[in-house]
Amino acid sequence: MSAAAHHVPATLEWRDGELHLLDQTRLPLQIHIERQDDARQVWQSIRQLKVRGAPAIGVAAAYGLCVAMRPHQALGLPEFRETLRQSAQYLNTARPTAVNLAWALQRMVAVAAAHEATDSAALYGRLVAEARRIHAEDTAICAGIGQHGVDLIRPGMGVLTHCNAGALATTGLGTATAPMYLAHQRGTRFKVFADETRPLLQGARLTAWELQSAGLDVTLITDNMAASMMASGQVQLVIVGTDRVTANGDVVNKIGTLGVAVLAQHFGVPFYVACPSSTIDAATASGDRVEIEERTPGEVTGFGDTRTAPQGMAVRNPAFDVTPHALVRGLITEHGIIEAPFEEGLRRVARTADDASRTA
Amino acid sequence: MSAAAHHVPATLEWRDGELHLLDQTRLPLQIHIERQDDARQVWQSIRQLKVRGAPAIGVAAAYGLCVAMRPHQALGLPEFRETLRQSAQYLNTARPTAVNLAWALQRMVAVAAAHEATDSAALYGRLVAEARRIHAEDTAICAGIGQHGVDLIRPGMGVLTHCNAGALATTGLGTATAPMYLAHQRGTRFKVFADETRPLLQGARLTAWELQSAGLDVTLITDNMAASMMASGQVQLVIVGTDRVTANGDVVNKIGTLGVAVLAQHFGVPFYVACPSSTIDAATASGDRVEIEERTPGEVTGFGDTRTAPQGMAVRNPAFDVTPHALVRGLITEHGIIEAPFEEGLRRVARTADDASRTA
Repeated sequence: MSAAAHHVPATLEWRDGELHLLDQTRLPLQIHIERQDDARQVWQSIRQLKVRGAPAIGVAAAYGLCVAMRPHQALGLPEFRETLRQSAQYLNTARPTAVNLAWALQRMVAVAAAHEATDSAALYGRLVAEARRIHAEDTAICAGIGQHGVDLIRPGMGVLTHCNAGALATTGLGTATAPMYLAHQRGTRFKVFADETRPLLQGARLTAWELQSAGLDVTLITDNMAASMMASGQVQLVIVGTDRVTANGDVVNKIGTLGVAVLAQHFGVPFYVACPSSTIDAATASGDRVEIEERTPGEVTGFGDTRTAPQGMAVRNPAFDVTPHALVRGLITEHGIIEAPFEEGLRRVARTADDASRTA
Repeated sequence: MSAAAHHVPATLEWRDGELHLLDQTRLPLQIHIERQDDARQVWQSIRQLKVRGAPAIGVAAAYGLCVAMRPHQALGLPEFRETLRQSAQYLNTARPTAVNLAWALQRMVAVAAAHEATDSAALYGRLVAEARRIHAEDTAICAGIGQHGVDLIRPGMGVLTHCNAGALATTGLGTATAPMYLAHQRGTRFKVFADETRPLLQGARLTAWELQSAGLDVTLITDNMAASMMASGQVQLVIVGTDRVTANGDVVNKIGTLGVAVLAQHFGVPFYVACPSSTIDAATASGDRVEIEERTPGEVTGFGDTRTAPQGMAVRNPAFDVTPHALVRGLITEHGIIEAPFEEGLRRVARTADDASRTA
């Protein structure tokens, strides 16, 4: 790839009234962009993880509902509204636990319900506008995290990240990666270490690929090399993403995050978490209250299609771990960086986000 | 596998004048024992890692020299001695940096040189006896480590290990695994967590398999799950192996060991290192003086034939890391457990080992 071709990969695009998705299941070996022709195809794309990452799924679902409704603009308004409701219900079954999926679809249906359209084509136009708005909001959140985090990255630093809280998980610059992309755009020279992130290797397949595509200086390591990189003074900053931050600042994120946080404390490296306000769970007091999903043993007993462990091997496969807030230097939100004591800062940011959505 | 069939796997066997090796490259999917018919086959087996682990390589090479010399017992003594010298030289080229390989072959040649044989058949007999002695010594070292370490394992414990410092790396009970096998034989009920150990997955392919074969309660985890297991109180003890212990007690071992040691300290779990006296490097003051082998990027960008990272990805792939002695609770040697201050204890054990070899 030539230097001129470097760019942050686009997870999806709405172009000429059509939705185009980057097929993430083929990365990094193939770069394949797939036009979504009907609701069934969108459903499959979400189900098969062609698009993944909570923010990206929300935006894909909103546009996906437009894809579903486009052929029905000649219907009468009542039939159009009924088809819309059914299509939203259908798309919502693509993944059972993705909060952003249900959230985006409900928002689309509510907007349609509140809109006094003269005909179905006009209502369809309103839906497309709302999907674009959801898209723009997601992009803006990434940009906000980037702007608040970019000054953490100084020339010559090594920055370590885990899993993929990247552009590919959002429709913007990503969360953990946003400060990196902005620092790179500013011309700051620094190095990124990407943990491969077993068992599903999102770091190797996605983060390493997207940072490389954007022209950043990225080095791939196995998860168990992070300690060695820190001990030899090559890492000065850690930024990871999060799936949920509880009221006290505990961080639920991809398995292995806790280990990185403990190492960072031991080696005196500041540990930051990119935390869009949507991931703040004010209703849960602390991380130990969060149930951790245990995934299938096959992810651990093999590597891709290669089986490596014996038949019948007992396995643990928690998908997430909990990093206690005491190990966290700061939470980088789109409204600013929160430092300890976290309760107060998290409440403030959650209020700001609520106000922003009311005035929007 | 029925309970009655449980046993600690044998890395190699000398039976009816022939050498049989367990082909470790096929584990854990196939259990294939291969008779070694000539020097070339033994050379290939060592080169291709069918037998691996420093102690096991030494024993395999000693028996391998017997395999090479068996057809030559009708030669005159001078020709036999010359063929022996050439065969030892040849086998020594199988792996360039394996210290035990050269050590065992030199010992065999020296014994032959010192032996006043009446004919080649008698000298051949002396060689076989010496190979058996090298074998027995290795087995005894494992047993010694086991006996000194077994009391560390108490009922209900979770014991975590990294990589394969197991029976498969030796011709006995292994080093890190020896206390586990003995505790199991005593009837102590405990649980082992085996880190899979990227990039080469020795934990998944070898440790998990051999402990399972012996009937131990073993659970496979990815390396980045160790923190989660410790945080949830499931690990009360860590035992790992070592490739080299420097004069101050710093431990050079498989990449990822340092991370486990830092986690163990953070979560208050004692961290022990199984350390046969042969791995004590009294001539090197501390771990920072040890050069760390950097291996091929392909090990990190995939596994086996499965590629996961993008083309042209920059990679770090240090094979080992250095755990500072401050993180080590104890070094389990065949002569006893050494605790801080390590210098003194290491000197004492090295002296004991020297005395033992002089009186042997």
